[in-house]
Amino acid sequence: MTDFLTPDWIAVDWGTTNLRAWAMQGATVLDRASSDQGMGGLSRDGFEPALASLISKWTAAGPVPVVACGMVGSRQGWVEAPYRSVPCTPMDSNLTPAPVSCGLDVRIISGLSQQAPADVMRGEETQIAGFLQLNPGWDGVLCMPGTHTKWVHLSAGEVVSFQTFMTGELFALLSNASVLRHTVSGEGWDNQAFEKAVSDTLARPEKLAGMLFGLRAGQLLADTAPEQSRAALSGLLVGAELAASRPYWLGQNLAILGTGTQANAYRNALTPQGVSCLMVDTERATLAGLTAAYRLLREAP
Amino acid sequence: MTDFLTPDWIAVDWGTTNLRAWAMQGATVLDRASSDQGMGGLSRDGFEPALASLISKWTAAGPVPVVACGMVGSRQGWVEAPYRSVPCTPMDSNLTPAPVSCGLDVRIISGLSQQAPADVMRGEETQIAGFLQLNPGWDGVLCMPGTHTKWVHLSAGEVVSFQTFMTGELFALLSNASVLRHTVSGEGWDNQAFEKAVSDTLARPEKLAGMLFGLRAGQLLADTAPEQSRAALSGLLVGAELAASRPYWLGQNLAILGTGTQANAYRNALTPQGVSCLMVDTERATLAGLTAAYRLLREAP
Repeated sequence: MTDFLTPDWIAVDWGTTNLRAWAMQGATVLDRASSDQGMGGLSRDGFEPALASLISKWTAAGPVPVVACGMVGSRQGWVEAPYRSVPCTPMDSNLTPAPVSCGLDVRIISGLSQQAPADVMRGEETQIAGFLQLNPGWDGVLCMPGTHTKWVHLSAGEVVSFQTFMTGELFALLSNASVLRHTVSGEGWDNQAFEKAVSDTLARPEKLAGMLFGLRAGQLLADTAPEQSRAALSGLLVGAELAASRPYWLGQNLAILGTGTQANAYRNALTPQGVSCLMVDTERATLAGLTAAYRLLREAP
Repeated sequence: MTDFLTPDWIAVDWGTTNLRAWAMQGATVLDRASSDQGMGGLSRDGFEPALASLISKWTAAGPVPVVACGMVGSRQGWVEAPYRSVPCTPMDSNLTPAPVSCGLDVRIISGLSQQAPADVMRGEETQIAGFLQLNPGWDGVLCMPGTHTKWVHLSAGEVVSFQTFMTGELFALLSNASVLRHTVSGEGWDNQAFEKAVSDTLARPEKLAGMLFGLRAGQLLADTAPEQSRAALSGLLVGAELAASRPYWLGQNLAILGTGTQANAYRNALTPQGVSCLMVDTERATLAGLTAAYRLLREAP
């Protein structure tokens, strides 16, 4: 059964907090592995050993090409993979080789940048490329929920424009580290409170600043339950994001690329606005994108 | 010179992070002391020793009344001083005695609450009472910048309504703990960047959510200086607050109760809107308020 673990190539998604790898045969996943050795915790010379140790079981028969996306290609990463400027396809065949001392052959996919308004992405371009592999010819808008949610306008196979919102990070900071942390404790969720809060800030986004402390006061004065306050905090932030991103979703063909609670929250927020969304699994899109990059690499002259 | 340090009473401002005390003779400050033993770091039985140790040098000749304001009176504080509900005067003579085991006589000033929209304050009511002592008959709006900035509508000696904004805390979280921390590092300040950002979110508050990540992207793509990004972050947040608090300041008689950079930032943000502000020192107002409480206590039947 050794053959089973001898891949053609290795797919890697290397973000700020996690390193995930898949042993691939063509587009088929043979095996998977992950570690918490994300870009954020590594110095420049820490990348090669972190990767080598994670994938050593797959390279016993000799090195195979590695294709990686994500923050590994940032200025603070293993090697800077220069941004490609939109409008452009999400991916091209110019992958940046990482400096290695052992026999690894690691290529890093470039992120995308936008001059005005200034914006950047790293990792999402690979998911976008994968989404287009899975949905050829698709025109419309992608909503990519995450720590930094991206809204992406796609047309004729190109990324036309995009915008990043720090909604996920704001929610994490406010719920873990602010005066609201006791008010929104636990994991509970009250969807009615979420929807009401979304509609509040979607209609009056300027209210966000003033409504946050109201959650704390509501708990002190009216004993509002934590699951209500937690869902309301999320709803206030998502509603404010939807108010700002309205040109991206209003009357558009929309897909949400994400999984779990967060992706569902965006869908639940958009449904009352008459927007219907195609839901797409992130990992599937990431792997399709990395596979597309591997094919471009093989076909490159 | 021992007499010099024998006060009539002791004024205390006991917040979440700091404990400050003044040895008073009537309205005159004889001496002052402070420690980092704020409410946030103390368990219920830690308050008495924290205070006793700070003021022992003033009570050698015997105990004197202590009047305290701030988070010391919250549910997590020494003893809960029940909120008084607006509309009401900022202060009355019903001070809450703290449970003590030694001979101290400690009275805590009640905070204020508002039912709809739900809001609370503790400590600011004392500054408001002090402000009214310093400016008898004043009608208008107080802006009280801080971790949680308060806007307070005063009329005929009463607090009519108020609203709290988490702007200061949001700035601290975003500049110390978010992806923006490297972008806004240092203490530099570019006032032009501040004013532009204020006017951006004041005009289009829904833009806040989308403009935050733009600071990071601006640094990556255009090498924006940290002092510009730092001032812009502050400006975006203050502008969004001003958009939400517009009914409080538009065409109103306004005073800013605060000191230093933060109070000046609010003044600089409001000046281009044609609003002129009376600037009032916080400590002066706090002491005037605590003195007023001490007098109410003495005059009480």
